[in-house]
Order: sequence, then structure tokens, then C-alpha cells
Amino acid sequence: MNTQSCASWDLSKWIGCQKLELDTPCLVVDLDGLEGNLRRMEKSVRPFGKGLRPHVKTHKCSMIARKQVAAGAVGLCVAKLSEAEALVDRGLRGVLVTGPVVTPQIINRLLDVAGKDPSLMVVVDHIQNVQALQKAALSKGLIIPVLLDVDIGLHRTGASPARMLELANRIADQSALCLKGIQAYAGHVQHMKSHAFRKQASLESFQPAVDMLHQIRGAGIPCEIVSGGGTGTFDIDTAIPEVTELQVGSYVFMDAEYLEVGSADHAERFTEFLPALTLLTTVVSVNQKDFVTVDAGLKALYKDGASPIVRCPSGQRLRYDWFGDEYGKLSFDPGSAGPSLGSRIELIVSHCDPTVNLFDSLFVTQNDRVVDVWPIDLRGKCQ
Amino acid sequence: MNTQSCASWDLSKWIGCQKLELDTPCLVVDLDGLEGNLRRMEKSVRPFGKGLRPHVKTHKCSMIARKQVAAGAVGLCVAKLSEAEALVDRGLRGVLVTGPVVTPQIINRLLDVAGKDPSLMVVVDHIQNVQALQKAALSKGLIIPVLLDVDIGLHRTGASPARMLELANRIADQSALCLKGIQAYAGHVQHMKSHAFRKQASLESFQPAVDMLHQIRGAGIPCEIVSGGGTGTFDIDTAIPEVTELQVGSYVFMDAEYLEVGSADHAERFTEFLPALTLLTTVVSVNQKDFVTVDAGLKALYKDGASPIVRCPSGQRLRYDWFGDEYGKLSFDPGSAGPSLGSRIELIVSHCDPTVNLFDSLFVTQNDRVVDVWPIDLRGKCQ
Repeated sequence: MNTQSCASWDLSKWIGCQKLELDTPCLVVDLDGLEGNLRRMEKSVRPFGKGLRPHVKTHKCSMIARKQVAAGAVGLCVAKLSEAEALVDRGLRGVLVTGPVVTPQIINRLLDVAGKDPSLMVVVDHIQNVQALQKAALSKGLIIPVLLDVDIGLHRTGASPARMLELANRIADQSALCLKGIQAYAGHVQHMKSHAFRKQASLESFQPAVDMLHQIRGAGIPCEIVSGGGTGTFDIDTAIPEVTELQVGSYVFMDAEYLEVGSADHAERFTEFLPALTLLTTVVSVNQKDFVTVDAGLKALYKDGASPIVRCPSGQRLRYDWFGDEYGKLSFDPGSAGPSLGSRIELIVSHCDPTVNLFDSLFVTQNDRVVDVWPIDLRGKCQ
Repeated sequence: MNTQSCASWDLSKWIGCQKLELDTPCLVVDLDGLEGNLRRMEKSVRPFGKGLRPHVKTHKCSMIARKQVAAGAVGLCVAKLSEAEALVDRGLRGVLVTGPVVTPQIINRLLDVAGKDPSLMVVVDHIQNVQALQKAALSKGLIIPVLLDVDIGLHRTGASPARMLELANRIADQSALCLKGIQAYAGHVQHMKSHAFRKQASLESFQPAVDMLHQIRGAGIPCEIVSGGGTGTFDIDTAIPEVTELQVGSYVFMDAEYLEVGSADHAERFTEFLPALTLLTTVVSVNQKDFVTVDAGLKALYKDGASPIVRCPSGQRLRYDWFGDEYGKLSFDPGSAGPSLGSRIELIVSHCDPTVNLFDSLFVTQNDRVVDVWPIDLRGKCQ
């Protein structure tokens, strides 16, 4: 028992209980599964000389971030500044904010964090943002390490490769900014079913950014970091010599959406990482012939991505569907007996990131017994 | 300024600011709009002699629950026991748990709350649950007021009307349970577009339950409460003489989903309640020709229900779509100028309940100025 990690004393009472005794709905992490995923990811990128900067937005849990650092991560990614604030306050370092920070107030908050941790990095994708960061950092006497965010096909954030050299020059001109490298995230390819197509798409997406990188370096601008990739391309982007680190996220837990993606050795399934996160739910109503109602709906299981995968201890064939904000419908084959009132059902969630963000705690188990409770201490930090 | 209501001192700094200065993404409540909705709902049901037991699952905010009680509510509904625990701890009374409480541990928690508040009610829909509640309540020397939950068409929870008399008799036989009435929620009709069809569907749905209610009363079983209805049928179910109270929820905020529902005086729009909740978001990337990227995605705006409605101060025509966990895509007409980097955009959310559950605070405004910050203190309470 690690009492320091408990979300509260009230929750520590669960330590030692069987998983299926937990009040529901709740999220359960299989510790061996999680640690196996961390080890396998480190082991798969190390031979290629790449680093990992895992994305904390997936798990929102500083305990897991510490484990990722302990496993060898070179740093951590966050989507929003409020996540960076929380990690730095908890003593974690090497944080990269992977989205642009643009308003004066949030830039001020960024500078407060940068004042505590000079290793904090942020991406930029527009000259206006470069100028705003420069002005604010200069006024505080700070130098902010930045990555140039390059759009390699997702079109969500990032400058086009054609604009990279110009922007890199502009960043290099700023006295209060230090260009550390580029970020290139091919979010649009991560869930492509075929590993072969995904490989081709990812390598092709990276190429224009990599070509421009050489021009930037050729112009005498140091640009050592190339950060990108995700769980879907963890064994693909290692083949790109210029890539220095991978921003993998979902591999820690896996989810139904990623499990449906093909891998190098299996056309239908993602085999390299094991599902380590489940949602536990309880049957609360049994008045229908071919389904029962469970206590996990939209607010406990985010409705996005693939259908949740039902793990039923008794081997019944069950299908989950959402049934409003608070409930789910668990259908069974006509003629078979449904789960009984009060029975617990375990689900692999559809899309782990937004589902984890619905809860305050992770119940950590080994051999189906609760061994710890970890606060999801970055939950709700979306600013 | 009401400092007691502030989620934290850190947030109280926003009081006095303009709405558009807030850090984003965040939820904003227009106080006059909210209070107008509360008044209009009370005013619409009072002439029919009906009570309101508003559903707290919509707003998850005890400040709003207090306002509903102050406006005349006879009590409050919650979906889950953990919400009831929070309300009773905060001194609110007349709470009805609208879903079955079935496992031994949660029943024990129910009894702990019932020990603090004898007015707490819970629904039952199955004889096994009746027996479990009886046994547990008896062992603690408590008498639990219950409503018989009747399935009038949603098929989510509730016994069929055909089983009502039998179950009512069984409940009446239990020494530690007190049958206070029935719950009949026609969730399947609330969002029907046509008011006329919705009216017909709601009245027809209620009829079998109402017929059986008379048989139950005829058998000498007192059954005074008939609780049901929602925002979609607030002006329909008042016509059912047997109904004693309405479980309205979304009317406090309204959302894009409900605003698309026709009302008695408008075929296309829900006119009686005004949108009082908006999500504020910021443009963080402007590198594309026909859209910009904003800082609100799946984790800030739950992807369920109708498309969010964009309110753009400059009168631009903008359409929102989700763009991953952390971002949204705001498309504008080709050829027109898009919103500038850093500009704030206000959205009416798709489905208010699960979106409110993503945040910790509501920024309360009057005339676009922040006048208070209310904690969403029941957020995440899904057990």
C-alpha cells in the first residue's frame, strides 16, 4: 500500500478488496498490464536511439507520469497549459505544451511556469504568436524554449512545411525565444487499420517536414528536437532518422478504438500493448427480455470511438450501448440468461483519454485485488 | 459578489471581469437567463397544482439546487446516490434518487444518508431490490420512503405497468419500506420534434401507469406521489390529473438539442426557456483557409446531441465541429475572413448535462460581466 498516492483516505479503504467489490461505475487499472506497456514501449524505441515524451493528456495522472519518467522518458507532453502547471508543481520536468498558447493571460501563466522550470517548452505555429511570446518573455527577462509546430496533414494546428523556414528564421531572430526543434504530429494516420498503409502514410506525411528541417539546419539554425508520432505509429516513426522522440499516449491503457487497429504482426488487432484500463459497472435493472441496464452511461464512458468491449466473467456474450447520461444497455443473445441484478461487468472503454477525464481516481489492481488508488489529478485541466 | 459561493479564491479574481476576458475553455451562465427560466417553469406548473422536483443531474451545482428550492421546488431529483450524499451534506432536503440502488455497499450508503434525512426517497423496480432494501433498512431500524419506478416506454429502468399492482403490494408488505408513490419517466418522448406528437405520445405513455395507479389506490395502498416528466413535456404532463410533480432538468440551461425541439407556439424552436449556458472558447490556430482551430474539443464540449450553436460577436457565420480531444474546428464561408488568433467564441453546447459534468466551475455573468463563480460541486459523482 502506498498511502501517499491515495486520492483520499476515504478511498484507501478499498485497498485489499477484490476488484469486483468496488462501487461503480469506476475505472480500474491493471498494474502489471500498465507496467508491461511502459516497458514494451521503452524497449521498442531504445534500439533506434529515440526518446519517449509520453502524452499525459491520456491518463491525466501524475503517478503514471512519474512511472513513465522512471521507465526512461526524456520528458512529458501536455495538451494544455493547466496540465503543465500541475506537473511542474509536482516536480516533474521536461514538459512540452503541444498546443499553441495564444492569449495574454495564458501566456502570462506560461511564463510563471517557465520561471519555475526552464526546461518547459511550448509549440508555436504563427508569427503573431511568436511576437506575443517574445514580447511577454522579454518583459519578464525569460528565454522560452519553443518547438515550431508543423502541420503534416492533420490540419489542426501547425504551420505548413512551406512556411517552416521563414518561421524558423523569425523565431531565431527573437532574443527571448530559443528554437529547440520542430513538432510534427500525424494525428490523421494513427488509427488507420492497415499497418502497411499506416506506415506509408506516416512516412510520407513526415517527408516534407524533414526536407525543410534540413534547409533550416543548413541555414545555420540549430533545430535538434524532432517530436511527433503516436501509439499508432510507435514502430513506424522510429525508421525516420530525423525523429528524435515519440509523443505516444494511449499505449499505457489501450482502448477499444486502438485495439481494432492492425499491427505489424496481426491485420485485425493491435497486439503490442495490452488493455490495462477497464470500466467497472453494475447491473441495476433487469426487467427486460434481451437486455439489462447498467449504471454507466455518457458520464462514465465517453461516447466516442469504437464500441466498448464487454468482458463478462461468466463468459456470456454481451454488447454495450449507451442508454442516456447515467445508464448503459447490455444486450444478450435472445434465449440466453442475462446477467443478474447487482452483478459487476467490466468493459474496455471506447476512447481512453476523454473517459479517464470523467473520473477523479484510478483503482489500481494486481491479480484482481486493489493495491492502490491514484488520483487523476489533472482531470478537468482543459485550459 | 458572493465570496462564499466561489469555487476557490483563485477563481474569485475573475469577479468583475468581462466575460470575454475569461481563460478558456470555460462554462458561462447568464444569471438573468437562468433565473428567468426558473421563474417561468414555476409559473407554468403552479396553476395546475403541480410541484417541481428538478433534476440536479443537469447542473450538478448545489447553488442552483438552492435557487430551485427557493423558487418553490418541492424537492430535488438525483440520478445517483453520490449526488444525494452531496446534497444532503449541504443541507438540502426532499431528495429523490431516480435510479435503483442495488448493491449491498451502495444500499448501506443510502441508509447512511437516510439516517441524516428521513425525507430521502429512492425508486425500486424489482422484487429482489425490494427485499434487499427491506433487509438492510430493518437491520438499521430505519424506514425508507420509496417510489415504485414504472417503465412507461423508455425500457431503461422500471417495472412494466402490468407488474405494478403486485410490486406495490409487495412493497406495502415490507415493514421497513414506505410506498410514497410512483415514478414514471417518459424519456423516449422528451425530444420529439413536434409538440402535438410529443403531447400525444406523453399522454399515451402515462395512461397504463395511471390506470394501474387507480387499482393500487383501490386496493387500499396509499400512493400519493406521481413523479415524472421532463423539460420536453413540462407543458403537457400538467394535463394529467394524477401527476403531482415534474422532474424537469434541462430547462435551467437549455442546450442545442432542446432548442431544436418544437414548442406549443413554434414548430421549429423551444421558445419557453432561453439558453442560459454557453461555452467560451478561444481561437488558437489560424493557418487554414476556411477554418480556424479553437481550444474546446471532446473534453470541453461533450459530443452528444445536436450540433453546438455558435454565437459570434462579429456576426460571422461559423460552424463548430469536434477536432479531437482538445480542439474544435470552426469553419467559415469560403472567401470571408475567419476569426482572428486569440479571439473568443461563445457556443451553446450540444447536450448540457454531460458537458457541465466536464467542468469544476460555472462563471456567472450579468450583462456580460462576471458576478460570481459557482462550484459544480457534484461533478463526477456518478456512483
